Amino acid sequence: MAKIEAKLEQMGLKLPKPLVTPAGLTLPFKHVIVRGNRAYISGHAPQDPEGNICGPFGKVGRELTVEQGYEAAKLVALSILGDLKRELGDLDRVSQWLRALGMVNVAPGFNKTTLVINGFSELILALYGPERGGHTRSAVGMAELPIDIPVEIEAEVEIA
Amino acid sequence: MAKIEAKLEQMGLKLPKPLVTPAGLTLPFKHVIVRGNRAYISGHAPQDPEGNICGPFGKVGRELTVEQGYEAAKLVALSILGDLKRELGDLDRVSQWLRALGMVNVAPGFNKTTLVINGFSELILALYGPERGGHTRSAVGMAELPIDIPVEIEAEVEIA
Amino acid sequence: MAKIEAKLEQMGLKLPKPLVTPAGLTLPFKHVIVRGNRAYISGHAPQDPEGNICGPFGKVGRELTVEQGYEAAKLVALSILGDLKRELGDLDRVSQWLRALGMVNVAPGFNKTTLVINGFSELILALYGPERGGHTRSAVGMAELPIDIPVEIEAEVEIA
Repeated sequence: MAKIEAKLEQMGLKLPKPLVTPAGLTLPFKHVIVRGNRAYISGHAPQDPEGNICGPFGKVGRELTVEQGYEAAKLVALSILGDLKRELGDLDRVSQWLRALGMVNVAPGFNKTTLVINGFSELILALYGPERGGHTRSAVGMAELPIDIPVEIEAEVEIA
Repeated sequence: MAKIEAKLEQMGLKLPKPLVTPAGLTLPFKHVIVRGNRAYISGHAPQDPEGNICGPFGKVGRELTVEQGYEAAKLVALSILGDLKRELGDLDRVSQWLRALGMVNVAPGFNKTTLVINGFSELILALYGPERGGHTRSAVGMAELPIDIPVEIEAEVEIA
Repeated sequence: MAKIEAKLEQMGLKLPKPLVTPAGLTLPFKHVIVRGNRAYISGHAPQDPEGNICGPFGKVGRELTVEQGYEAAKLVALSILGDLKRELGDLDRVSQWLRALGMVNVAPGFNKTTLVINGFSELILALYGPERGGHTRSAVGMAELPIDIPVEIEAEVEIA
């Protein structure tokens, strides 16, 4: 079995099914594009195992606590990994995580965006290790995110 | 005639002239940089045919409706295509749209950023087709944008 | 002596020491990653010479004037250059600045983000010249930034 997927299983984590388009939206873009040795990854949302965008919805610092924001960012990592697996066939093909733009839907005055996006970063590091998983990132506070998701993350990785 | 430009003409769309620097600002950066097989594209604004940044100005969900935001995002696509043409000579040289960061100037509570940035995505897809035009993206809500433009989009493309 | 560092010295500017992790935070990511001929650069904050994230803290247009925001963006450029020097050994190895995402912590209604991020862009251009230093960028207004820093900038450069 592929190593990254074996680790996910050991951690009791499941990759969600493909995104179910939310009612009232059209999504005229791709979740992942691979060109040469780069994969470009769209902004992803927290999804449940069936692929539906899932709650809690709202702003961190108002509807969500920091801990709930952290869990949402971890779910976003799983959404990204699910699409990467479908595109690459094997998550072990990611040779280096390069860049992540971590966007938090913040209540006015909520400035702990670092701690929220750590939910994404710490899972990637646990799966890929400090070298291959060590990525650059920003963790910033947005005025609003689509359909009130609390966290959205876009990324870029190198593939072998 | 180049194919992409022929399509623009068929659609009745015109690329704007080079950006006219707004009063009171200096813009110490480049609109497009080409290195190897990549073109990096600065955040662009809606422009009129003469190159002036154009209205409606303000926040989507307050001064602008979703439909007006969609039209602004379409104008941003034309601004980007205008600068790409000046830099590349021929828009057919874009071999793959890779990534777009779609930023919407939102009124508090406006969460339909997806529908706004679709104005950009659907024009790129109409021009370049589902493969070459199929890009990854984020569509997110900003607290403010320069001089109250409703939409700003930065992007990256592969060139042949 | 390396040319870029000689220029910094002539301008009376010092690169800060490595970032001191702020109390209460963990930063599970890398400041810079080099792969092939690209360096990816995390979102950086203004730092004092000892590496501490430094004030003035708050929002431009409320706690900070445009001029103070400009100075903060210049400090962010120095933070980035400090990490690039530690990673590359020599700042002259940067062969082209490619892309910067300039994020300003804005008070409601503050729309002069262009003038703030010019503090970054004008220093990079002064050091690297109009060709090598000429980058693409966005300069946009965020709802919040980590621990109330006024400016955060992430970037990507080509290295020789």
